[in-house]
Amino acid sequence: MNSYDLIMDLVGKVSDISDLPAVGAYNIRADGCGTARQNSENIEIITKTDKPGIDIMVKPGTKGETVYIPAVITHGGVDDLVYNDFYIGEDADVTIVAGCGVHNCDCEDSHHNGIHRFFLAKNSKVLYLEKHYGEGDGSGKRIINPETEVFAEEGSTMEMNTVQIKGVDSTKRVSKAELKDGAKLVITEKIMTHGDQTAETSFDVIMSGKDSSCHLVSRSVARDNSKQVFRSYMRGDTECYGHSECDGIIMDNGVVSAIPEIIANDVDARLIHEAAIGKIAGEQLIKLMTLGLTEKQAEEQIINGFLK
Amino acid sequence: MNSYDLIMDLVGKVSDISDLPAVGAYNIRADGCGTARQNSENIEIITKTDKPGIDIMVKPGTKGETVYIPAVITHGGVDDLVYNDFYIGEDADVTIVAGCGVHNCDCEDSHHNGIHRFFLAKNSKVLYLEKHYGEGDGSGKRIINPETEVFAEEGSTMEMNTVQIKGVDSTKRVSKAELKDGAKLVITEKIMTHGDQTAETSFDVIMSGKDSSCHLVSRSVARDNSKQVFRSYMRGDTECYGHSECDGIIMDNGVVSAIPEIIANDVDARLIHEAAIGKIAGEQLIKLMTLGLTEKQAEEQIINGFLK
Repeated sequence: MNSYDLIMDLVGKVSDISDLPAVGAYNIRADGCGTARQNSENIEIITKTDKPGIDIMVKPGTKGETVYIPAVITHGGVDDLVYNDFYIGEDADVTIVAGCGVHNCDCEDSHHNGIHRFFLAKNSKVLYLEKHYGEGDGSGKRIINPETEVFAEEGSTMEMNTVQIKGVDSTKRVSKAELKDGAKLVITEKIMTHGDQTAETSFDVIMSGKDSSCHLVSRSVARDNSKQVFRSYMRGDTECYGHSECDGIIMDNGVVSAIPEIIANDVDARLIHEAAIGKIAGEQLIKLMTLGLTEKQAEEQIINGFLK
Repeated sequence: MNSYDLIMDLVGKVSDISDLPAVGAYNIRADGCGTARQNSENIEIITKTDKPGIDIMVKPGTKGETVYIPAVITHGGVDDLVYNDFYIGEDADVTIVAGCGVHNCDCEDSHHNGIHRFFLAKNSKVLYLEKHYGEGDGSGKRIINPETEVFAEEGSTMEMNTVQIKGVDSTKRVSKAELKDGAKLVITEKIMTHGDQTAETSFDVIMSGKDSSCHLVSRSVARDNSKQVFRSYMRGDTECYGHSECDGIIMDNGVVSAIPEIIANDVDARLIHEAAIGKIAGEQLIKLMTLGLTEKQAEEQIINGFLK
């Protein structure tokens, strides 16, 4: 595969697009450099001058547009660090498709560290999709460390769906948010680890605005000898509602830890946390096996349903 | 009230006995000294020679006996530290009533630090009741820091009910347990804080034995400006079942934090945690108020039910 094809193949895997879109904003970053960019009438992408990365400026009132900003790495020995800032104008309602794919057939590790900040103006709305993927048979590791910070002004909504299905040897995900009056944050995280992979996720949400809310759902599957740690910190400083949920399936020698923290700093803060870790229930397997599936197939079907 | 009456009044408040029992084992500790003791045929209490405290020896097969070991403090300026070790023989099934009452009308603080270790032999069973209480209008604080360690051998069961209802200015409770094959630990904790009180509880349970289990339920009410922190660490190293639940009601400017941690170190470990913090639901209050209660009465009734 030549370099362009490999880049577009990885872009496709993390962004669900098979080619560069004819219209609409996008920025493709490959091996630490911007390689393709397009603006739209409402969304402008500007290269930062003080550090690596881009500013994504979404005009107030922009509706229904999608921006693609995937980052890919095509070989070993890359240590990519990028700062992407998203400025979402008032009343805008947009979808942002990020994601990172690392192809490493070499013996040296490759890192992608993406630090994303979201500034959501009043009543704006963002659907943020982030997919992480690794491939390649080199001994060099595929390491992806995303950091996400959300500053949500009055009445704004951020929905964040992150998925890591395969091939990432090590990840440390840090997400932070501060929610003003009526702001809403919905996070869905799905992680599957296998082999000797490790994954750590950490959420830090402060509800400082009246009627703000946060729903955080993490689903993880740890197979083989992989290890996962889930941390969350959710604090309510005023009338607000927070809910966090962490469900982990362990298989083989997988290990999952959950360390959630909830702090009600105000009498009108309502906070709930739930966590459950265990293997697939025997009854579920048997039920599917009586329908004709092998144990392996039944397991796969349950895992797929769990991470869907 | 003379000293003996005050001691017995405090003993009664934390142990639910109005006088020294005519038969059965007990040890009353007052202001740092043993003041009354009785052994039974099956239960021997021995003063430690290397440090303050006692060894409570329960013979194998002892059934249905109750041991009372309350500790009380009657004035300010006391700093009591005591080590009590309980050796529960095989197949024994006993009730242990501990508890600490601090009466402080002075301007100096009084502390009680009780370090209790339980060695449960095979198939033994303990019901452990612990009540903490403070009173007195002095500016000196009433501080109770209990530490409990449980070593539960094969097939043994420990049920621990701890209650702190009133008058304890500051408490740090640390409980640790290691559970062998088939051992079972059930902990119920109830804490109410008011004024400027602080309460911290911490549980550390390691399930190293096959088919061991732990159920941990904490219910807390934080009124006025009081602050509570709940921490738990529950690890399953083999086939086991752990469940922890922390429910907090906040009132006025009360603050409650919950930091539970669950770690499944084995594919056959099943661990669940739940936590919920919030104020009393409006509907519940309204329902009771339509039955003729004032808001205050309705609140009290709900709190009493919650901590019952």
